[in-house]
Amino acid sequence: MADARFFHRAGPFTLSDIAAVIGAEPLLPDDAAVSIEDIAALESAGPEHISVFSDVRYRAALAPTRAGAIIISHKLAHHASPSSRLIYVGDPRRAYAQVGRLFYPQPPPVPGVHATANVHESACIGIGTQVDAGAVIGRDVDIGERCHIGANVVIGDGVLIGNDCRIGANTCISHSLIGHRVEIETCVTIGSQGFGFVPGPAGLERMLQLGRVVIEEGVRIGANCAIDRGATDDTVIGAGSVLDNLVQIGHNVRLGRHCVVCAQVGIAGSAVIGDGVMMGGQTGVADHISIGRGAHVAAKSGVMRDIEAGAVVGGFPAVPIKTWHRQTVGIARLSKKVE
Amino acid sequence: MADARFFHRAGPFTLSDIAAVIGAEPLLPDDAAVSIEDIAALESAGPEHISVFSDVRYRAALAPTRAGAIIISHKLAHHASPSSRLIYVGDPRRAYAQVGRLFYPQPPPVPGVHATANVHESACIGIGTQVDAGAVIGRDVDIGERCHIGANVVIGDGVLIGNDCRIGANTCISHSLIGHRVEIETCVTIGSQGFGFVPGPAGLERMLQLGRVVIEEGVRIGANCAIDRGATDDTVIGAGSVLDNLVQIGHNVRLGRHCVVCAQVGIAGSAVIGDGVMMGGQTGVADHISIGRGAHVAAKSGVMRDIEAGAVVGGFPAVPIKTWHRQTVGIARLSKKVE
Amino acid sequence: MADARFFHRAGPFTLSDIAAVIGAEPLLPDDAAVSIEDIAALESAGPEHISVFSDVRYRAALAPTRAGAIIISHKLAHHASPSSRLIYVGDPRRAYAQVGRLFYPQPPPVPGVHATANVHESACIGIGTQVDAGAVIGRDVDIGERCHIGANVVIGDGVLIGNDCRIGANTCISHSLIGHRVEIETCVTIGSQGFGFVPGPAGLERMLQLGRVVIEEGVRIGANCAIDRGATDDTVIGAGSVLDNLVQIGHNVRLGRHCVVCAQVGIAGSAVIGDGVMMGGQTGVADHISIGRGAHVAAKSGVMRDIEAGAVVGGFPAVPIKTWHRQTVGIARLSKKVE
Repeated sequence: MADARFFHRAGPFTLSDIAAVIGAEPLLPDDAAVSIEDIAALESAGPEHISVFSDVRYRAALAPTRAGAIIISHKLAHHASPSSRLIYVGDPRRAYAQVGRLFYPQPPPVPGVHATANVHESACIGIGTQVDAGAVIGRDVDIGERCHIGANVVIGDGVLIGNDCRIGANTCISHSLIGHRVEIETCVTIGSQGFGFVPGPAGLERMLQLGRVVIEEGVRIGANCAIDRGATDDTVIGAGSVLDNLVQIGHNVRLGRHCVVCAQVGIAGSAVIGDGVMMGGQTGVADHISIGRGAHVAAKSGVMRDIEAGAVVGGFPAVPIKTWHRQTVGIARLSKKVE
Repeated sequence: MADARFFHRAGPFTLSDIAAVIGAEPLLPDDAAVSIEDIAALESAGPEHISVFSDVRYRAALAPTRAGAIIISHKLAHHASPSSRLIYVGDPRRAYAQVGRLFYPQPPPVPGVHATANVHESACIGIGTQVDAGAVIGRDVDIGERCHIGANVVIGDGVLIGNDCRIGANTCISHSLIGHRVEIETCVTIGSQGFGFVPGPAGLERMLQLGRVVIEEGVRIGANCAIDRGATDDTVIGAGSVLDNLVQIGHNVRLGRHCVVCAQVGIAGSAVIGDGVMMGGQTGVADHISIGRGAHVAAKSGVMRDIEAGAVVGGFPAVPIKTWHRQTVGIARLSKKVE
Repeated sequence: MADARFFHRAGPFTLSDIAAVIGAEPLLPDDAAVSIEDIAALESAGPEHISVFSDVRYRAALAPTRAGAIIISHKLAHHASPSSRLIYVGDPRRAYAQVGRLFYPQPPPVPGVHATANVHESACIGIGTQVDAGAVIGRDVDIGERCHIGANVVIGDGVLIGNDCRIGANTCISHSLIGHRVEIETCVTIGSQGFGFVPGPAGLERMLQLGRVVIEEGVRIGANCAIDRGATDDTVIGAGSVLDNLVQIGHNVRLGRHCVVCAQVGIAGSAVIGDGVMMGGQTGVADHISIGRGAHVAAKSGVMRDIEAGAVVGGFPAVPIKTWHRQTVGIARLSKKVE
């Protein structure tokens, strides 16, 4: 399925292999040895492919498929043709992602430092780590094992990076402590000076920016994001959180664990975001705001007051989502009265 | 007019030369041999300059100008002084852009690969292509003829680039097929992993991102944009479309041909945008949305439902532009009732 | 206080030294010789630390503090314990920033050009300037004294940079004149082509972009910003103005002096912004708009009409802030009538 220019396929695997990876229900004896070469969408799959069915809106593609096997839940299985070979799991989408990683594993780093990389003599590069051409690694930097540091990456003095991290090309990191299994895309800035000024006789004077950025394990940061270091405290991105592209994180922000932050969100200085918060694209959060754990903020919202844990809000200023929908209806009615 | 530090002027050219380039109406015999040295605004132009008049709001500058020639339409010509030398065309702004390119042509690439560029031995660099210092070009990359690859650009394995492309410094491209005459500015990310996750027992697990980015011919991409590769399908930017700076394009987005996407727009995953769509700055488009060909979306809109072809919409949620204007009026009236 | 991995502390200093730097009122004779080793927050300070009290909301930390000295105003001094050693100034926050710079001075550049930097033979690098690894500096570039040019920075032909500037890693600058004491963060684009097109028979044709970017002295530009060069005039960033991260500045924009532009703001082409204007995050300004000096624009606003000097506006379309607040109240009431 995937373009071989860019993705290297492993396999083939038997259905037995696959079922073990995804924790599927026991297979029929005849099915276990069936060999699968690749993943594919239902529409394009052939007998050598495994596919997935997880969204009833697309059921038209299910019965006619020629796929060799279909990952599915019991709940949706009645939509399938009796002749299809069904592989039962609780969460087909997640299982399909796992099968995808089986067939298209992330290539491991190729250990070594490229001849054109500039690594300070005091820096420590872990075993199995790959440092690409033109990367610049500063004094006392400590990079863990099995990392991949992309081309032309610039890592400032003293930065710590854990094991199994991937830093995309042309990204800049300074004043930061980065945990294990962190993935950062390309053209990202981490550790820049925060935006704090006081008026003085000759104009604006910069406030101190003496904190750090702490990125906990398993975080994923999208392309072209900017994360400022703390002013006095640290800026913290909690474990397992994921940031989409072009996100702005101000100084001293504390983002919880397992948060989902969509593209172009901006979080102003010293905001505190609880665990598991989801924020839609282009949302803004004012400085010093607190958002409780598990809250959901709809896309393009402007959060100007604290949000309680578990709340679902939207609009600008952000209000409970039902209120916002009523506001939208009210405004629509209002416009009908205007000539 | 232009600063010689940055722009190199060609010429002089006769009005006859110029008229041929812009398809002007036949000149008076005495005018054809007039020599023009440069372009200039009406206010600053002298007899050696050619200028343009295309917007009646600025007519105060027209009669007093000392310009040696003025590009103008018949419709606006009555605003000019009888003593001015007028060059008639249908679209003066477009003609002026053409004259500008005549006097200030884009410098051609200087063929060759800089000694500090890192080009993989399997990569193919076309005739006449310039590769600047520090650029890193991966395995099996194929770059066409007469391209200019800027300094410290990073091009990942397998990427294809057509002829006559310009890739700005510090830009990163991976998992992409790029057509002819594509211009990409600096600090751009193309081909990053899309933003798709499923919950798992240990946190969020990444969905597969096995697609590509396909950029068709003549596309222009502004500075610091981010374009994710597809998840299963491709992300496609249609021929002749132009993106301003800091634009976000999610995975599987299909942008049509000749679209205009202003700065800081965000288009979420799997949205389908028709040909000739115009989107104002800071607009957001939700995932899986469809916008019909030729639609116009006003700046800062939030598109949450499908938009029909040719529609003109604005606001958040985006509605027909007249409705939005009525909403604005209604809200203004409403506020007068609030103490 | 600050992490020694990233920040190098000077000192110790006597209170007499410190008072001289911040223009404090005369000290008690016994206090002048007290030695201070570092700055610290009230909560964590010990006798060797100096701290600050400037916000009455945090007064609970004041009386119990063990800080060796506290910078404070007369107005707030009555909240302090009688046993605390108080240092009186007019503006404690500003004084604290000054003390912070005393203890944590910005490290001066280490003069010299790294062996892997590519500096064109015609470029001029001032005395005391540091050029880091992989930087690429074009023809006829002129960089002043005591500058720091970060790793992998790319500076295009003809660019002028004043004294005491700091250019962050992986930033790209072209077609620009940059004054003294300008600080630019990482992954910034300055001088890119503006976004202007005219329809032609074969699609969109680019308008001329023959202007420059002029950045006056003391400007600070955040990470991942994009500033287009002018089309015919220049794009100007006035002296002392500060831009946060991910800001977009269109061609021909004229931003005044001492403006504050928060993160993710977008200013469209040819807008004219007066001195001292403040713009909240994610605000958008339409093209050709004029905003008078000293105006404040609330976060996430959309400015579609000219704004008078000194006005305070908010909302989309932006209106006087009191009107906007009334609109918000009106909409809230309206939603209560909707079932």
